[in-house]
Amino acid sequence: MTEIGIIAVGGYNEMGRNMTAIRVNEDIIIIDMGIRLDRVQIHEDVDIDRMHSLELIQMGAIPDDTIMNEVNGNVRAIVCTHGHLDHIGAISKLAHRYTAPIIATPYTTALIKHQIESERKFGVKNNIVALKAGETLEITKDITLEFINTQHSIIDTVFAAIHTPSGAVVYACDFKLDRTPTVGEAPDFERLKELGREGVIALITESTNAGRNGKTPSELIAHMMLKDVLLGTEEADVGMIVTTFASHIARMNSIVQFAEEMGRIPVLLGRSMERYVGTAYQLGYIDLPESVEIYGSRRDIDNALKKIMEEGKDKYLPVMTGHQGEPGAVLGRIANGETPFKIETGDRVIFSANVIPNPMTQANRYSLETKLKMKGARIYDNVHVSGHAYREDHWELLRMLKPEHVIPAHGTIQMHSEYIQMAEDAGYSLGDTLHLLRNGEELYIEEE
Amino acid sequence: MTEIGIIAVGGYNEMGRNMTAIRVNEDIIIIDMGIRLDRVQIHEDVDIDRMHSLELIQMGAIPDDTIMNEVNGNVRAIVCTHGHLDHIGAISKLAHRYTAPIIATPYTTALIKHQIESERKFGVKNNIVALKAGETLEITKDITLEFINTQHSIIDTVFAAIHTPSGAVVYACDFKLDRTPTVGEAPDFERLKELGREGVIALITESTNAGRNGKTPSELIAHMMLKDVLLGTEEADVGMIVTTFASHIARMNSIVQFAEEMGRIPVLLGRSMERYVGTAYQLGYIDLPESVEIYGSRRDIDNALKKIMEEGKDKYLPVMTGHQGEPGAVLGRIANGETPFKIETGDRVIFSANVIPNPMTQANRYSLETKLKMKGARIYDNVHVSGHAYREDHWELLRMLKPEHVIPAHGTIQMHSEYIQMAEDAGYSLGDTLHLLRNGEELYIEEE
Amino acid sequence: MTEIGIIAVGGYNEMGRNMTAIRVNEDIIIIDMGIRLDRVQIHEDVDIDRMHSLELIQMGAIPDDTIMNEVNGNVRAIVCTHGHLDHIGAISKLAHRYTAPIIATPYTTALIKHQIESERKFGVKNNIVALKAGETLEITKDITLEFINTQHSIIDTVFAAIHTPSGAVVYACDFKLDRTPTVGEAPDFERLKELGREGVIALITESTNAGRNGKTPSELIAHMMLKDVLLGTEEADVGMIVTTFASHIARMNSIVQFAEEMGRIPVLLGRSMERYVGTAYQLGYIDLPESVEIYGSRRDIDNALKKIMEEGKDKYLPVMTGHQGEPGAVLGRIANGETPFKIETGDRVIFSANVIPNPMTQANRYSLETKLKMKGARIYDNVHVSGHAYREDHWELLRMLKPEHVIPAHGTIQMHSEYIQMAEDAGYSLGDTLHLLRNGEELYIEEE
Amino acid sequence: MTEIGIIAVGGYNEMGRNMTAIRVNEDIIIIDMGIRLDRVQIHEDVDIDRMHSLELIQMGAIPDDTIMNEVNGNVRAIVCTHGHLDHIGAISKLAHRYTAPIIATPYTTALIKHQIESERKFGVKNNIVALKAGETLEITKDITLEFINTQHSIIDTVFAAIHTPSGAVVYACDFKLDRTPTVGEAPDFERLKELGREGVIALITESTNAGRNGKTPSELIAHMMLKDVLLGTEEADVGMIVTTFASHIARMNSIVQFAEEMGRIPVLLGRSMERYVGTAYQLGYIDLPESVEIYGSRRDIDNALKKIMEEGKDKYLPVMTGHQGEPGAVLGRIANGETPFKIETGDRVIFSANVIPNPMTQANRYSLETKLKMKGARIYDNVHVSGHAYREDHWELLRMLKPEHVIPAHGTIQMHSEYIQMAEDAGYSLGDTLHLLRNGEELYIEEE
Repeated sequence: MTEIGIIAVGGYNEMGRNMTAIRVNEDIIIIDMGIRLDRVQIHEDVDIDRMHSLELIQMGAIPDDTIMNEVNGNVRAIVCTHGHLDHIGAISKLAHRYTAPIIATPYTTALIKHQIESERKFGVKNNIVALKAGETLEITKDITLEFINTQHSIIDTVFAAIHTPSGAVVYACDFKLDRTPTVGEAPDFERLKELGREGVIALITESTNAGRNGKTPSELIAHMMLKDVLLGTEEADVGMIVTTFASHIARMNSIVQFAEEMGRIPVLLGRSMERYVGTAYQLGYIDLPESVEIYGSRRDIDNALKKIMEEGKDKYLPVMTGHQGEPGAVLGRIANGETPFKIETGDRVIFSANVIPNPMTQANRYSLETKLKMKGARIYDNVHVSGHAYREDHWELLRMLKPEHVIPAHGTIQMHSEYIQMAEDAGYSLGDTLHLLRNGEELYIEEE
Repeated sequence: MTEIGIIAVGGYNEMGRNMTAIRVNEDIIIIDMGIRLDRVQIHEDVDIDRMHSLELIQMGAIPDDTIMNEVNGNVRAIVCTHGHLDHIGAISKLAHRYTAPIIATPYTTALIKHQIESERKFGVKNNIVALKAGETLEITKDITLEFINTQHSIIDTVFAAIHTPSGAVVYACDFKLDRTPTVGEAPDFERLKELGREGVIALITESTNAGRNGKTPSELIAHMMLKDVLLGTEEADVGMIVTTFASHIARMNSIVQFAEEMGRIPVLLGRSMERYVGTAYQLGYIDLPESVEIYGSRRDIDNALKKIMEEGKDKYLPVMTGHQGEPGAVLGRIANGETPFKIETGDRVIFSANVIPNPMTQANRYSLETKLKMKGARIYDNVHVSGHAYREDHWELLRMLKPEHVIPAHGTIQMHSEYIQMAEDAGYSLGDTLHLLRNGEELYIEEE
Repeated sequence: MTEIGIIAVGGYNEMGRNMTAIRVNEDIIIIDMGIRLDRVQIHEDVDIDRMHSLELIQMGAIPDDTIMNEVNGNVRAIVCTHGHLDHIGAISKLAHRYTAPIIATPYTTALIKHQIESERKFGVKNNIVALKAGETLEITKDITLEFINTQHSIIDTVFAAIHTPSGAVVYACDFKLDRTPTVGEAPDFERLKELGREGVIALITESTNAGRNGKTPSELIAHMMLKDVLLGTEEADVGMIVTTFASHIARMNSIVQFAEEMGRIPVLLGRSMERYVGTAYQLGYIDLPESVEIYGSRRDIDNALKKIMEEGKDKYLPVMTGHQGEPGAVLGRIANGETPFKIETGDRVIFSANVIPNPMTQANRYSLETKLKMKGARIYDNVHVSGHAYREDHWELLRMLKPEHVIPAHGTIQMHSEYIQMAEDAGYSLGDTLHLLRNGEELYIEEE
Repeated sequence: MTEIGIIAVGGYNEMGRNMTAIRVNEDIIIIDMGIRLDRVQIHEDVDIDRMHSLELIQMGAIPDDTIMNEVNGNVRAIVCTHGHLDHIGAISKLAHRYTAPIIATPYTTALIKHQIESERKFGVKNNIVALKAGETLEITKDITLEFINTQHSIIDTVFAAIHTPSGAVVYACDFKLDRTPTVGEAPDFERLKELGREGVIALITESTNAGRNGKTPSELIAHMMLKDVLLGTEEADVGMIVTTFASHIARMNSIVQFAEEMGRIPVLLGRSMERYVGTAYQLGYIDLPESVEIYGSRRDIDNALKKIMEEGKDKYLPVMTGHQGEPGAVLGRIANGETPFKIETGDRVIFSANVIPNPMTQANRYSLETKLKMKGARIYDNVHVSGHAYREDHWELLRMLKPEHVIPAHGTIQMHSEYIQMAEDAGYSLGDTLHLLRNGEELYIEEE
């Protein structure tokens, strides 16, 4: 008999500070250690890199893992299923408390290492182990970890299956069932269906977009919309700026490719461009054309912008950080007139990103767009698709895996409510096979 | 010297009952005669076909063309720029008052003839003349009509240019600048730019989506999203229903093609399917595969649905009317359990349409979806893109045509306000070169 | 030791078809049997009075009390806490299945009797017992029912306390903590606090407005806003129409009083006006001035409207049904021009009601208002306050009663989610002392 | 014959930087010189007091009065109709350019003097003249200024009538038709109707709330809701904080009065409390009880908060600035834990203010409320009524004044659109008697 405990450490009452612990008898696997940046944003003058974890816990910015003291067992591994900050951002603050390796896909491990290096308060010495999608790793005699390929808005995202003597616990947080991705492979549907046949004890899955009907549009849709915005115009000579998530490697790849088709030189500007795109290139996830330029420091960026102004805006496609109106990002500095790049009437600013639905971000975006418009910029907003499964994708995943128990995660209680209604349609019953957990709670499942 | 009058007959205070008269000295060209169906919808038990025009005018359902009595001139032509009801729906009620031919593209003329045939109150005897995109027709010695190819959510849509001795008046209502259409050609950008160089006195253009940022996604995007919904699934054997605008021939064409790829027989159900798709096929706008079946009468439809149930839902792709929850449409009857087709848990209903933003429609859709969900259907909503230009498409059109005067049409004052702000960005000045007209008003322009 | 079961029969997944069963060992008290009218509304041509309960259950219109077969115990009483249809509307369909008296406050019992009389399918022969706020009734040796005065948008609303040997179960569904009501007394705060001290095992409470911040405005606020709309004008001579909930006796009382102050004769029009207001008057809940006129039949109503037109609109204040745009109601018939009453430019229509947030109702209201405006009416909307407790009222009730267990009811899972977050702030813990029930579920509580 | 020019200087394209010039032949009266603070807010590190007017004009923060150079005439007076910053905030930047006195009501003149004193860039030496509501002042032989009493969310607000030989031009911007104000008198309806009889050439009026149906609730409603929040509770001993507009003297008056009824000492905290409330008290607009305390400096405020903590929160009612989440305001500092005042679970924060509908403010409020809630505060939001006329108030004003021409002001084109539709209902015709002006435009009216 196996006793499974699902411990909701963070991300069950909110979006962001994700952390789940899965206990198999007395061995524990932690999955994800994320940060909730909007809880940091509401405070002025915060230097996260120097803050203590307890302070960040109190702010609600990172998971309150002090509850782990009451869980009966030993942590054997810390697993990260992709490299976004809401999954790895608290590693540098919390991982050192556990004597356990950190296991993630290759791209994710590279980002985790960056994360740890920039930390100023704690030293994180845990072993970091790369495991590829499709591979397995024995954690204890009884527990094997398997990574299953999936898609999300960052490359090298996986589902994690924790195999126990009584079946698997599957962690599927932050994914889309994209059958026509532009980088990487479609999710491994065959393996998912096989897992369903083998027997899944529990599925822990994100509820973020469970309230949106239908299925998430493929990244191919964003690719084509963006292509149309960039190439389908009668004003091909105007200044154009693209801004998108630096970590969205597939999108960056498309943009660079379109720049080539436009006969423009792609210039990537921003510190995080260097980190995310550079790393993806070094690890071989994407190809970059010879012409591409990447600049991370403020001085290099301003020099590049100066060159663009001198040689002609129509020769370059600058791609930059700042789509959420982050103060200090390149686009914000351009809007403030703080760089050599001057916006002229008719220049285009293309946001290949949504607006994160948070009042702080909305205000920053409003400021940014107002300033850009006052200078004459034309705005193309939301040339983007979501990286999170919609309701019917969840429906399909649920029916492939056929788990005995389902636990929505990564969201507010309102988001979980949407998931619950879908799962009830699929035959699950709240309080019996379907569970609404709150941060700090442990769900017990006994299996033969 | 030429005196131009732009008479806002209908569609300047609202969406729907579009009618504009363009007076060139004492000759008048009427463009569009549309109906506003939501003004009919708010009344119960209305039989439009038997109603008198004055009654419909009083209801606000059709343009109040009694104001034409005060316009100094003679109507020389009635032009319809595409075949939607908000452009041709009042022809049968109003056209007989004018001794003038009705001029439209071939597909539009076919629809106008249907319209006139179903009329029960008036006899419309006007001559109906087909003019293709790219062609011109001399209306009077001084006035030549030109049709310029464009794209919209119905095939054979055109811009109309009224050439006068002093330059052209361009009517660009209901269009999208789609560079990758799935049926027909992209708008004739070269001709538009040429017109701009020749001199455009006035542009009358729709403001419908002037408030939406960026550009309208191409029909190709809808095509690919729909393909992904239909073909990209691990549950390929469930019942699937598609519902879309019968008049959206490009969309219908995609659906029929996807059915083939799915190995399913496409079955088109609904009276308007027969009319719109049948006509498009007969006129050679689309190809249909041998396998396709189309049924218009209630008995034929129910027989077809019975056959589908007997032979297996997985062998057919029924495509039907009813996406707005219209009472009596095929999908509504299925939701009510009034047909042999039974929805089972997991069957999919795909709305390849938006919800028309009107409380009556929203209520009908809510009823429909509620009933479908209670039967176990999974809903895929809004697998669709708009047929109306967004703000930046308007920006480009304005800069191609460089009209002296701009008049937003086809919308509420709020929609016009959005257009006005964009046009001001482009250098136009309200009350001088940019005009906000209200129904019943005439704008005078004197040209050398 | 007492075993308490809280059985969520209806109204836990939705608004409307409320029914809760409280089991005390093997004795059961049913509280409320309501109907969900919007589930009826989505179907055309439904005659509820002749429908069978199983059909209505299948439509989701009344509670699915077939689950009561699996509850171990005998029903000893059916209690209704006020007279709205979502609390009493299913009595005529379900009560006859139980050999138990129906217990309610005097006004509520009168409405229940009306309800039973209009039923055409079932004969309901249960004994009907009136119990006043502040009174108690022994149900079994171990169970005593107590009614505690509260406020809501209908008079004679109570909280029900089920006293058991181990403490009380309190049912507080549909209430507001109104300290300045215009009819009746403020809630009995002293008794509530006393109950808190005596010990409350469980509180079952509505979550309807738990998501709205602050406290519900008092009925006095509606009273004064309405007074200002009616009396505070420089156009005192125009036609004025008021429409409100016929069952909102306090509001009706204010309106009649304002009519007097305006020097106008109040004329109450509509069948439900007769029922609700007439009953309240007969039972002595309100006084009516001599001048008041009430008409219920279509013929009487039309005659009254004719008289108003003849004698002068400025002499009368017609008060009528139809605020939700119900087809066939008096105001709707006026808007359609089907009565002798003619709306003229500047006449006022005052909606002393909110719009029920349901697409069907919103469409009806839209139709109604559009027609009224086309005739020249000026609309005063939402001269109204809610009858449901807001978040901070719930906070106060929770801290007065200090229940061991809390169960939100009367709402969707989204509404319950709002309540849950508030209750967590107050120290309750989901799954332990705070419970999210779904229709059909029983919660077990064991008490010493 | 008189030629009237209405020059839209600012506030016709936006909310905030209001300025209108009224030319009577060659004499000009300027009305209002306001600032648009949200255009300042989107920039960091802006010190308005030291900025040059041209810079502020370029930011869109103050009216672009450079267009006055092209108006043919001399400015004879600068009139301010109330003391809010969107009416007087640009006085210190622009007034010195005109050799003309500044005329305003007594309270407004006091605020204007404060404004001028805090200016660091320009010296404003214009004569400042106080004129009371009900009084008139001859400006030139042909022009007389009259102030007519009205109500708004600040005391001593007036309508301005500019009497010319051909009739009056009435400026009615920022008002409500409050018949039960809590401080001051109701608007002077008799004089307004008399003006209508005498003949009004043009009405310039705010469109801010023209889109909201019905009438603005009276300040008495806010008074009573606030009273209920403060006094109607079973938790009378908890900490309570009220925050409201310091300039809303009527509201402040109510709060102070309620503090007395609660047996708490009212403590007014914040620099602007000192300015606005202190001035109102000195000028005799309100009475303050002996017990009241007012502190403006940070040190005094913190000392007062310390005393409150020491002596018991239940003995004081602190009333403070910060309702919009302004960084650095008292409430924000409390939320940040920067003052001696500690929020405990159950303490109440009452926002007697709306949230200004601007993303910057919404973000600040979100931050503020999040922090307050994390500390355990219970939030009562929007215990408030608007100070701006709703649609039907505009309807009544229009019918009292019967102006020949109407010009909506103080709003975006969308707000004006709402006004226009109302005015069309009242018989006005756009482009003829109803005018949509844009900043920088002059409307010419010739009168016999």
